[in-house]
Amino acid sequence: MKNPQTLMATAILATLTFITSITGADPLPSWNDGVARQSIIDFVEKVTKEGEPEFIPVPELIAVFDNDGTLWPENPVPFQLAFGLDSLTLQLTSKPEMKNDAFVMAALAGDNTKLLADHYKGLFHILGLTHAGMTTDEFDQRVNAWMKTAKHPRFGQTYDQCIYQPMHEVLAYLRANGFKTFIVSGGGADFMRVWSERVYGIPPEQVVGSRGGVKFEIREGKPVLLKTLEDVFVDDKAGKPVGIHQIIGRRPVMAFGNSDGDKEMLEYTTIGNPHASFGLIVHHTDAEREYAYDANPKSSGKLIEALADAPKRGWTVVRMKDDWKTIFPAK
Amino acid sequence: MKNPQTLMATAILATLTFITSITGADPLPSWNDGVARQSIIDFVEKVTKEGEPEFIPVPELIAVFDNDGTLWPENPVPFQLAFGLDSLTLQLTSKPEMKNDAFVMAALAGDNTKLLADHYKGLFHILGLTHAGMTTDEFDQRVNAWMKTAKHPRFGQTYDQCIYQPMHEVLAYLRANGFKTFIVSGGGADFMRVWSERVYGIPPEQVVGSRGGVKFEIREGKPVLLKTLEDVFVDDKAGKPVGIHQIIGRRPVMAFGNSDGDKEMLEYTTIGNPHASFGLIVHHTDAEREYAYDANPKSSGKLIEALADAPKRGWTVVRMKDDWKTIFPAK
Repeated sequence: MKNPQTLMATAILATLTFITSITGADPLPSWNDGVARQSIIDFVEKVTKEGEPEFIPVPELIAVFDNDGTLWPENPVPFQLAFGLDSLTLQLTSKPEMKNDAFVMAALAGDNTKLLADHYKGLFHILGLTHAGMTTDEFDQRVNAWMKTAKHPRFGQTYDQCIYQPMHEVLAYLRANGFKTFIVSGGGADFMRVWSERVYGIPPEQVVGSRGGVKFEIREGKPVLLKTLEDVFVDDKAGKPVGIHQIIGRRPVMAFGNSDGDKEMLEYTTIGNPHASFGLIVHHTDAEREYAYDANPKSSGKLIEALADAPKRGWTVVRMKDDWKTIFPAK
Repeated sequence: MKNPQTLMATAILATLTFITSITGADPLPSWNDGVARQSIIDFVEKVTKEGEPEFIPVPELIAVFDNDGTLWPENPVPFQLAFGLDSLTLQLTSKPEMKNDAFVMAALAGDNTKLLADHYKGLFHILGLTHAGMTTDEFDQRVNAWMKTAKHPRFGQTYDQCIYQPMHEVLAYLRANGFKTFIVSGGGADFMRVWSERVYGIPPEQVVGSRGGVKFEIREGKPVLLKTLEDVFVDDKAGKPVGIHQIIGRRPVMAFGNSDGDKEMLEYTTIGNPHASFGLIVHHTDAEREYAYDANPKSSGKLIEALADAPKRGWTVVRMKDDWKTIFPAK
């Protein structure tokens, strides 16, 4: 008799095949035919067929996705920044004395220079007001309340409706083929974990992000975790492979990003990987339906290096205007 | 037509039921009948039956296990310490000048006082020689080589053969019922992730442990992660709920431990949890087949507090001598 694990694997594989057959042949219906779409399918097919030279065992099918600019937009400001600013505005209504706080007023006026001066003093002050000094449960409630009501200024929908439908299909396609999908984002892990499972089908334990500290305390006889600004970890640039190592503990075989924040993650995934590997960059070329930019505004408009590196690294470049039939899910 | 997710869930549930039926009625054959064994089964049955008042949805069936003393022994010394000492001995054969290193000689002589003095100066020096200053790949190779050859001084087997068979059955039983099983250990994450999947069926991304830093570097054109002693995180005591939050991002519903290092993890899991929850402590009562101790040698022989707290918290206490038919897997 076969052992239970083998039986289980066989039954699950049969189920997957069945689902593929009933859902039709096209796993990526929002993608136009083209090099980008085909490169995803070719890679998945070659690494998931047992017996093929580039076959990768299921446990090592790890795919990592940047979030801002890769799974949803990062304009006009990163969505978590919109949350922070809305949170400040809300606090201001109940505590009008906050008007005397120069950093709060600078944040609301978009005066980044003031916030970043003196070793990010203002930024940390704002983070302290919006992302710390409360329990993780309280923070989750704030994020949930904001996500239910706040609307994207251009698209007029809640932020969690502004996700890229074509990338959503990639997530589902990879999972149906045995991949484990992770977010690896410069955004806050605590912010994303509140909605990642509902919105992307990615559970909290598969979300890697920036973080502050948490402190275990017993309050009124019950354990809580208090959010602090100690031990801040920034999961961006060279921090992304570090975050991947700390949380996932093994090297991904697919990486999806869109900016210089993703360059090291793409390198870590695709250069010198003992397995076959795949890198993809979402290039924002669609001013009409989304945004168009190929320079990094944070680095004085310098061309996004990761995008410049794509040809020599063999990374797929998705041109949103040409490669995506639709940008957002149908209402 | 049902959507693919529903079909998939239905098919997987059917598979699980099928597997349970073919593998027979007893999921915990190495456990004697008794309160401890029954408490595990009762909890799993009540939270996994849809429609029951204490039902917990599959994604939230998170179970966390301490490692040293819970999944394998921690005597005569924690196994990772044995690895560190063997690693020093090995280095000494190729670098005899290390004999002049007072901390190395103190470590090999078991002189903990010298290592812990002056803010753990000696301990960090030893960690620097055995757990840092190399790439993660090099460290993995060292751990693998050690695990293949080193033998436990009393049991005469490789360390990865000295795992508790009854706990192994609990891991498999929980997974067959939809739980995701995690290690949450004071031991090093990098050390455990090398073998956790092979030995326990727990993949690296489900291992939470202590850690040093890693630094992303390109060496000879290829990305590597260099192990450092910066940003050391100790995943023990109040650090365990912190580690759980950072890596898993949600509250477990089952926790298994054996020492004061696990007390806060047990509290975080079982006090004020909106879901039904379960805590278990392995009590080492079997001097003949394993070890017997109910005091914490690190705290001058003080009774293990977590064990003392068990009755008032409703935590299950496993008495190894009475509750376990066998300790280790059959050879």
